[in-house]
Amino acid sequence: MNVELFGASRTLGSAVQKALEVKGHEVIGITRKSGKFRADIQDIESLRAVYKQIGSFDHVACAAGDVFPAPLEQTTDEQWANSFKSKAMGQINLVRAAIPFIADKGSFTLVSGVLTDEVTFAATIGTTINYMVEGFVKGAAFELPRGLRINCVSPTVLTESKAYHQYFPGFIPVDASEVAQAYVRAISNPMSGRILKLHKTDS
Amino acid sequence: MNVELFGASRTLGSAVQKALEVKGHEVIGITRKSGKFRADIQDIESLRAVYKQIGSFDHVACAAGDVFPAPLEQTTDEQWANSFKSKAMGQINLVRAAIPFIADKGSFTLVSGVLTDEVTFAATIGTTINYMVEGFVKGAAFELPRGLRINCVSPTVLTESKAYHQYFPGFIPVDASEVAQAYVRAISNPMSGRILKLHKTDS
Repeated sequence: MNVELFGASRTLGSAVQKALEVKGHEVIGITRKSGKFRADIQDIESLRAVYKQIGSFDHVACAAGDVFPAPLEQTTDEQWANSFKSKAMGQINLVRAAIPFIADKGSFTLVSGVLTDEVTFAATIGTTINYMVEGFVKGAAFELPRGLRINCVSPTVLTESKAYHQYFPGFIPVDASEVAQAYVRAISNPMSGRILKLHKTDS
Repeated sequence: MNVELFGASRTLGSAVQKALEVKGHEVIGITRKSGKFRADIQDIESLRAVYKQIGSFDHVACAAGDVFPAPLEQTTDEQWANSFKSKAMGQINLVRAAIPFIADKGSFTLVSGVLTDEVTFAATIGTTINYMVEGFVKGAAFELPRGLRINCVSPTVLTESKAYHQYFPGFIPVDASEVAQAYVRAISNPMSGRILKLHKTDS
């Protein structure tokens, strides 16, 4: 099976690529600025173009998308707009644009995060954007044609992302390699509409 | 107490206005095109201007915001963008813009809908947008200053909105007057971060 992967150059994405390759998948990284296959998830025309260039594929996985947090009262219009365009609409559009190209019974795996369920300072933008991604996954699971599936991986802060640990006091980090297994699980098993949570918090 | 109400000219909004006035609240309708106080929730500068014009108030309630649905494969970029700007970011912005003006311990009451939890044909845009609104409410409940509260009312299809009944087969409609009581409940009681569901479906 071949998997189109967004964010392959990042900490999480490179762990996802490794985990998929171990299982025998061919992984094609789609990046913004380098390599053979380029697209910006904020630009749906670039997504349509890269999928057309690749032609056909079995699965799409995303470990990309940013949010730009600030304490709620200080959030700017730009922070809201840029977070929406990147992690929310960017992921929705990389699904929409792929539908004409992806193989029957293929799958999509998106990424949200622990702020859907947990709170930190300056979390509201992240919570809102993660909810939007998860809502799309819940809705699209019923509407995708041809047996296509869609799921979402929701990691807590990564062990490797040490610069972020200060913003997640009391959160037990998870290794990128463990989150990567959730991508493998979502791609390999007949699930759809699931949110796979790697949170390591009380529940 | 005075309540700023968006969507007062609509079926739900006029029921909310009536229910609040029965309880002794002064209701000020903010509308797009007529009346003394005008704003478009899609234009944050118009929101800032109308709040400044009013000066001070105790509560803000919203029964406005549209989504533009279609079967997922046929959704257009415009339908996604317009749904986001109206029901999602429009409601987020009517909160953000009000923070400098609303009285201590005031409240916000937003609106989502049954598609967060239930599925119909062509539901994905509605599900995604409702999730976004509810995510914002969940996050903002922890971040709002000065004892401000925020909640969300989630109605199923309204009894009065007969043209929509065909799109909700098997959904038992709810009277606008009953949904309006959820607004009264959210405004009057010390709750925050709650989603008040008027769904009348199995659970």
